[in-house]
Amino acid sequence: MSSHYAIGIDLGGTKFAVGVVDRDGKLLVKNSRPTGPERSFEEIVKDIAETVKLSLEQSRLSIEESAGTGFGVPSTLDPKTKKLIFANNLYWLDKDLASEYSSFIPGPVYIENDADCAALGESAVDPSTCKNTLMITLGTGFGGGLILDGNIFRGCDGYGIEPGHAVLVYGGRECNCGNRGCVEAYVSATALAERCREVMVVCPGTKMWESCVNSRGERDLNLVEGDTAFLAAKKGDPAALELVEEFTGMAGQAIANLITLFRPEKVIIGGGLSNGGDSFIEALFEAAKKGIFGGGIMPMPSFSKALLGNDAGIVGAAMLAFRNIP
Amino acid sequence: MSSHYAIGIDLGGTKFAVGVVDRDGKLLVKNSRPTGPERSFEEIVKDIAETVKLSLEQSRLSIEESAGTGFGVPSTLDPKTKKLIFANNLYWLDKDLASEYSSFIPGPVYIENDADCAALGESAVDPSTCKNTLMITLGTGFGGGLILDGNIFRGCDGYGIEPGHAVLVYGGRECNCGNRGCVEAYVSATALAERCREVMVVCPGTKMWESCVNSRGERDLNLVEGDTAFLAAKKGDPAALELVEEFTGMAGQAIANLITLFRPEKVIIGGGLSNGGDSFIEALFEAAKKGIFGGGIMPMPSFSKALLGNDAGIVGAAMLAFRNIP
Repeated sequence: MSSHYAIGIDLGGTKFAVGVVDRDGKLLVKNSRPTGPERSFEEIVKDIAETVKLSLEQSRLSIEESAGTGFGVPSTLDPKTKKLIFANNLYWLDKDLASEYSSFIPGPVYIENDADCAALGESAVDPSTCKNTLMITLGTGFGGGLILDGNIFRGCDGYGIEPGHAVLVYGGRECNCGNRGCVEAYVSATALAERCREVMVVCPGTKMWESCVNSRGERDLNLVEGDTAFLAAKKGDPAALELVEEFTGMAGQAIANLITLFRPEKVIIGGGLSNGGDSFIEALFEAAKKGIFGGGIMPMPSFSKALLGNDAGIVGAAMLAFRNIP
Repeated sequence: MSSHYAIGIDLGGTKFAVGVVDRDGKLLVKNSRPTGPERSFEEIVKDIAETVKLSLEQSRLSIEESAGTGFGVPSTLDPKTKKLIFANNLYWLDKDLASEYSSFIPGPVYIENDADCAALGESAVDPSTCKNTLMITLGTGFGGGLILDGNIFRGCDGYGIEPGHAVLVYGGRECNCGNRGCVEAYVSATALAERCREVMVVCPGTKMWESCVNSRGERDLNLVEGDTAFLAAKKGDPAALELVEEFTGMAGQAIANLITLFRPEKVIIGGGLSNGGDSFIEALFEAAKKGIFGGGIMPMPSFSKALLGNDAGIVGAAMLAFRNIP
């Protein structure tokens, strides 16, 4: 059966998003709900299934007309069974998501890592049709997915690559994975917000405080977010500009390391922080180019910003279903 | 023609080695000479060709009976033309080695990066016949070659991966590539010798001085080598033990980063520093295991010391020739 539609699900630690996607990567219907990771695995999957049913109704399609369901999950996967081995943001260990989901929704189920799905989604809509793309997601964490000759590169043994947990600052800050100095401990919205708080405490005059005033008119460090520094930097605040520069340098080198090791033809930057503004993105590309080995001699990859924004994961997840049928 | 022999050449910045190798990876004849990188490209290639002729005579074989010549070179290669784009230790830019060599020796010529050849050589003699092997060469520099599904992984664009020039210590020591904090600036014989000198200057009582006395009976920092710290550590010298521990930790994390990114099934450690003693190698394996993401949950690669020692590059270079004929 040559289906024109598939269900794509981007499952995150904070929220999940369900989309009905066509073969060209166009999102026809999208619904998003809080994941509520404090709930049981079964409850969350049931909630997802109900959101899928709703999305199908809204798009006036039946599941039988679709190519199936694809999931992008923030988890390590068993390469054979596709069981979720460890999803630290969801507190899940060894979960059979496909089997649980199939008790609600019929049809084939495909599961891959969320960063890999984002890479696949961006590749699907990339007008250059490049088959060797590194996609970096600068969000709550640092996600990296590599499309190698058109396919997700899951590492030699299939367990998936983890670019956020290579060490960039040996002996540096504690990472939530238990190691020290990981890329993610420096290059993520979480890490940037943490650095903001450090600087704001010793810098009461910084404009970063302006976006961190609560409903009672009090300054509140709990309101610091990934974009706090970017907002103040745009106002010309010196402390924020310095923070953004520091962040850009580290993010650039983290990306350069991956280019030195994988030599992709194209690098795409997505995730919430990629909305930090054109000057940030330009500076980030420059920092990355500076950090690549043999930069002046060997060809450089092309750099671009993600086209799909936060929908890359949904679209890529749906693409998993299309890839398995003609 | 099904040839049973091939010429393997390991071309280094200090010396080159020529071997006659059989299909099983057995080295029948080996000759080594100083490279003399101050000489012209043409002179060096002529010298290599003469050493090949000598080696063939010694093994009582003719070049026509061989599968051809394979070169392992410390250079970035153009993936299409196989020209040497940049060999910083040889001061070569854009050299057509195959063409120059063919003016002396007939038959097919194959050229790959030296770290990749070492990986191929070790894979060829690996009794486990693992097809996904990461080979790390701890020598003058930090070399890394990945065999992915039986083939050299040259990165997506074919220009070759450079594990020694991913950054491990952001903003750290200057590397000879022009960047700061590269793996090679910390995890190499050169870097270890440099650290020894730093410590010896402030630590006149360390036993590291014992191996650094010149012919006039004077202490001489020029005599410090990659194994100076290892020799003194074996005598129980506290400063040397601390240096070896520091080095082991960094080397382990550098290797762990590559495992987190490539997920090989097997890791082989070779190069001069791999002779630092069994306790060093054991500690190195432990440090690497500690630094891998998801170490306690996902499968670990197996770790072993190189079987071929310094001959891995020669054997791997010869294997290039065998791979291209039945």
